[in-house]
Amino acid sequence: MKKSKKVSMAVVRRLPKYYRYLGDLLKKDIKKISSKQLSQLTGFTASQIRQDLNNFGGFGQQGYGYSVSDLHSQLGKILGLNRPYRAIIVGAGNLGQAIGNYGGLSEAGLNLLSFFDKSSKMIGLSIGDVEIRNVKALSSFIKEHDIEVGIITTPTESAQSVADIMVESGINGIWNFAEADLKVPDNVMIENVHLNESLFTLSYLMENLSEE
Amino acid sequence: MKKSKKVSMAVVRRLPKYYRYLGDLLKKDIKKISSKQLSQLTGFTASQIRQDLNNFGGFGQQGYGYSVSDLHSQLGKILGLNRPYRAIIVGAGNLGQAIGNYGGLSEAGLNLLSFFDKSSKMIGLSIGDVEIRNVKALSSFIKEHDIEVGIITTPTESAQSVADIMVESGINGIWNFAEADLKVPDNVMIENVHLNESLFTLSYLMENLSEE
Repeated sequence: MKKSKKVSMAVVRRLPKYYRYLGDLLKKDIKKISSKQLSQLTGFTASQIRQDLNNFGGFGQQGYGYSVSDLHSQLGKILGLNRPYRAIIVGAGNLGQAIGNYGGLSEAGLNLLSFFDKSSKMIGLSIGDVEIRNVKALSSFIKEHDIEVGIITTPTESAQSVADIMVESGINGIWNFAEADLKVPDNVMIENVHLNESLFTLSYLMENLSEE
Repeated sequence: MKKSKKVSMAVVRRLPKYYRYLGDLLKKDIKKISSKQLSQLTGFTASQIRQDLNNFGGFGQQGYGYSVSDLHSQLGKILGLNRPYRAIIVGAGNLGQAIGNYGGLSEAGLNLLSFFDKSSKMIGLSIGDVEIRNVKALSSFIKEHDIEVGIITTPTESAQSVADIMVESGINGIWNFAEADLKVPDNVMIENVHLNESLFTLSYLMENLSEE
């Protein structure tokens, strides 16, 4: 399938939701679904759903709808979920451990090869069966194992220097949980999970709610 | 200060970022900043920054810029960070523990009173000095302690029923980490952190990168 390069990030961010709902339908052994039914499930309009999916070529058939298993597997390919990635986590504290144990990693094809930390109390221990190594060995490990994805769960103040080492050593995708806007070259993909921004947004919403 | 009710969520989601950068400037003892300097820091345009802040009344002075401490404290108020909230976490697994230990909770004024879990191995233990209680006591605890914010770090399949109990018991803000689009009444604020959607987005970006 040929991919459009001009798909907007707004569309891209809806794809995982379609993928999740289609996975749920698959589990329920539902074979086909119309854009109208997908609309009821996802809350997006049927016309938006058709538009979104048309970005990647036409999947549906007029009057039939979408084959759940076809659409699920095509979206999985578009999302790159069928391709395995070698990954590491820097920062083996509570959040790093939670992310390391997160089932979604393997669902997204991420194969976690090592944790890294600077604390001598942590180095040498394992989380699950994944070892915690000294962060000083980060660069050589990335090069030796051809690591593609780096996950940053360090404190804010270390995040940029960790990202710099990751980029210099050849990583081209970073999943960043630190409260920092990391500066990386254009050819390195960054996806941020900024917990504080999410929590502050909730606080704002509640503050406004309470004044109404 | 009078608040506009028509501020878009896109603006609201930028406020925590301004707040964070202003906090960094405060720590460096920088007293004033222009929208142009804020633009260089945040990556938003100076005109967007002025527009965003004008939604909440004019903070800056022509030719002077913004007072860092004033703007920081005003944004804190707008975000509701000066108001304490009583909070609980349902789901005391890895992710729940990481969120419970997350320093941002107290920064956002969240006072964590209890964890809840259904596992008999967990009930009665403490994380930090916060006890893990039986999820069967969730409703009575919320009512008794007038809990305002519920954090959901359960598996997907339990999330809606947990949210239902929270809402029925009087909670009006939910920070949801489960991979589910929870259905709640309009007067209950939900903020989602969907890790899988974030990770799948990174996977998509890398997949497209590798084909260029």
